[in-house]
Amino acid sequence: LVSRMRTFGTTIFAEMSALAVQTGAINLGQGFPDTDGPAAMLDRAVQAIGAGANQYPPGPGVLELRQAVSEHRAAHYGLAYDPVGEIMVTVGATEAVAASVLALCEPGDEVIAFEPYYDSYAASIALAQARLVAVTLRPVDGRFTFDPDELRAAVTPRTRAILVNSPHNPTGTVFTRAELTVIAELCQEHGLIAITDEVYEHLTFDGVGHVPMATLPGMRERTVMISSAGKTFSVTGWKTGWVCAPPALVTAVQTVKQFLTFTAGAPWQLAVAYGLRHEMEWVAALGAGLQDKRDRLMEGLSAAGFSVLRPAGTYFVQTDIRPLGFSDGLELARRLPELAGVVAIPTQVFYDHPERGRHFVRFAFCKKDEVIDEAVTRLKRLS
Amino acid sequence: LVSRMRTFGTTIFAEMSALAVQTGAINLGQGFPDTDGPAAMLDRAVQAIGAGANQYPPGPGVLELRQAVSEHRAAHYGLAYDPVGEIMVTVGATEAVAASVLALCEPGDEVIAFEPYYDSYAASIALAQARLVAVTLRPVDGRFTFDPDELRAAVTPRTRAILVNSPHNPTGTVFTRAELTVIAELCQEHGLIAITDEVYEHLTFDGVGHVPMATLPGMRERTVMISSAGKTFSVTGWKTGWVCAPPALVTAVQTVKQFLTFTAGAPWQLAVAYGLRHEMEWVAALGAGLQDKRDRLMEGLSAAGFSVLRPAGTYFVQTDIRPLGFSDGLELARRLPELAGVVAIPTQVFYDHPERGRHFVRFAFCKKDEVIDEAVTRLKRLS
Ligand SMILES: CSCCC(=O)C(=O)O
Ligand SMILES: CSCCC(=O)C(=O)O
Repeated sequence: LVSRMRTFGTTIFAEMSALAVQTGAINLGQGFPDTDGPAAMLDRAVQAIGAGANQYPPGPGVLELRQAVSEHRAAHYGLAYDPVGEIMVTVGATEAVAASVLALCEPGDEVIAFEPYYDSYAASIALAQARLVAVTLRPVDGRFTFDPDELRAAVTPRTRAILVNSPHNPTGTVFTRAELTVIAELCQEHGLIAITDEVYEHLTFDGVGHVPMATLPGMRERTVMISSAGKTFSVTGWKTGWVCAPPALVTAVQTVKQFLTFTAGAPWQLAVAYGLRHEMEWVAALGAGLQDKRDRLMEGLSAAGFSVLRPAGTYFVQTDIRPLGFSDGLELARRLPELAGVVAIPTQVFYDHPERGRHFVRFAFCKKDEVIDEAVTRLKRLS
Repeated sequence: LVSRMRTFGTTIFAEMSALAVQTGAINLGQGFPDTDGPAAMLDRAVQAIGAGANQYPPGPGVLELRQAVSEHRAAHYGLAYDPVGEIMVTVGATEAVAASVLALCEPGDEVIAFEPYYDSYAASIALAQARLVAVTLRPVDGRFTFDPDELRAAVTPRTRAILVNSPHNPTGTVFTRAELTVIAELCQEHGLIAITDEVYEHLTFDGVGHVPMATLPGMRERTVMISSAGKTFSVTGWKTGWVCAPPALVTAVQTVKQFLTFTAGAPWQLAVAYGLRHEMEWVAALGAGLQDKRDRLMEGLSAAGFSVLRPAGTYFVQTDIRPLGFSDGLELARRLPELAGVVAIPTQVFYDHPERGRHFVRFAFCKKDEVIDEAVTRLKRLS
């Protein structure tokens, strides 16, 4: 393994999901739902397989999907992206992030990301031989946020981009317009690109709405906007994502993307186009259902003795494990299958400063009610 | 776009396929069949979608597919790979190559590849900031091969790996045991890794058999063996490939792969496992049918005035365009839709020394007989 990747092992998601399979523990680790996407959308994938859509799609993706993404951006956010030249399809958001970072960051460039961060960000930045500069999200009144001065101080002449993930995994924070404005102003002042991972855009709660960075004044032209079908339509195994950006940025990202995987899976693309056009009510219902599941899991975790932080979006809830007498989340997560028959994700692995997240553990609530209830029953053994 | 990628534009495949769509020309450029894979395998994919296999598969891939790959390697080549730790699933062979190069090559390392080469090799090497050293395949008695002394001379203290693609795209050469032995000896003498792209392993003609590099003495331990379902089962849009290698190499490649796309599409994996176990007769028939199509296209291209080189494998035939009075294949390929209503691939774009391939144009024969015949009729307009 090359030196720039030696600090990376198996992703915590693969490690913990493998542990769940091995031990038979309930998997509240990796974020994937245990119910499927909209039936009519699955039918469309089936139809596509039968109708001969099994060969290479065009490099930038099936036009019908790019059109559907364009319509979706217009309808939901008033954003206009041309399906030809401003939208491309990727193998999930992970590939979109990797291709964006590899396309836009020279060796030695700095990329700001908010810690705790989805681990592929650090890896993509390392692959590009760029440098991740982490700005820490800390709980303030139970909601993770950043200190604007800390963010401003993180910008240097080498800064090339800010990676913004909102709704934010793993903290569940949905960045407010005010928070986004701080970031946007820095981008414009210093000529930075915003790479925005918005895969949980429709999974927000309590009436909190998702604000895309590209809707802020002056930001559309400097934003690489990323989303995907996996979280929107509960088909995480379909690996279909997309990038919306001005032509020069899309061309750059596509130039790298085509050499990572050439194209993305073909039959899914037609199905996802259908989903974006006809299943947004299903998605709204998914979000509403997830809010109930969030509340159910939060209540249970509180009863089990965790201190719980309320997320405004995503699949995930953060807990502070100290009230239970634990201090190290990684240690606890590795023992949790044996202690309680449950798998969770230790938040500290997503930090450059692990001590800042040592006492946090993340639980996923994108699961059937009875699975959540059983997990809670088991977790009560801890106290 | 970062400087290391600035020499790369849109892949020639995307460019030429887009040209075909635009002009309505017959697409004998990009290598994808116009008939589908085995019906029972497609059915399996449909079943998997209906049976809830739509969420993230395990990081290294669905175990059933890894087992099927292991059985396939044993049955066809007598190679033993452990499904756990020695086999991983990728988003097609393109991702496998990218992840292998990014995982194994430090900046400044040299990677030898045979030109003309599949364009993603050069891009992956550039992404890793390594250096491609091209050894030229030249027609000798109508078959592309390399000069062993030229290959030996290409090895330097910075050489890290040799990328071996056999059956070879775009020349159609199937490397002989003698040719592979030259490469294998160099690998062992200089401690090099062989990264082998064997996606056309089952598509060979005239009784010429594919010899995997890993079957040569001493090579299993230093070979990253890559193949995929796209070409084997005529499902190029499914983007499902695999890597077989000793544990240390698989771990390295997986470490990078997980951050490029996390996992590969889930429902395909079950279907491809079925294909490897139950559809190898279908694959043999595909190969036999392709041999007939090769002959059909070769005959037609000869009649149209091209000088034709006989491939022993792959989907592709190389032609020399000089007998028709043309000298520049790229120029001809760009005008071919208008001149003859056909799209082909200019071979010169796959060279570090384009002048060595300027007069070659590649045609694909993985098409219905009537499509081949119509293309030939049109190409006869050229003379
Ligand atoms: C590869 S896991 C992708 C993100 C997610 O689902 C998680 O954080 O659990
Ligand atoms: C992305 S195209 C992959 C290889 C191939 O099919 C070709 O060479 O045409």
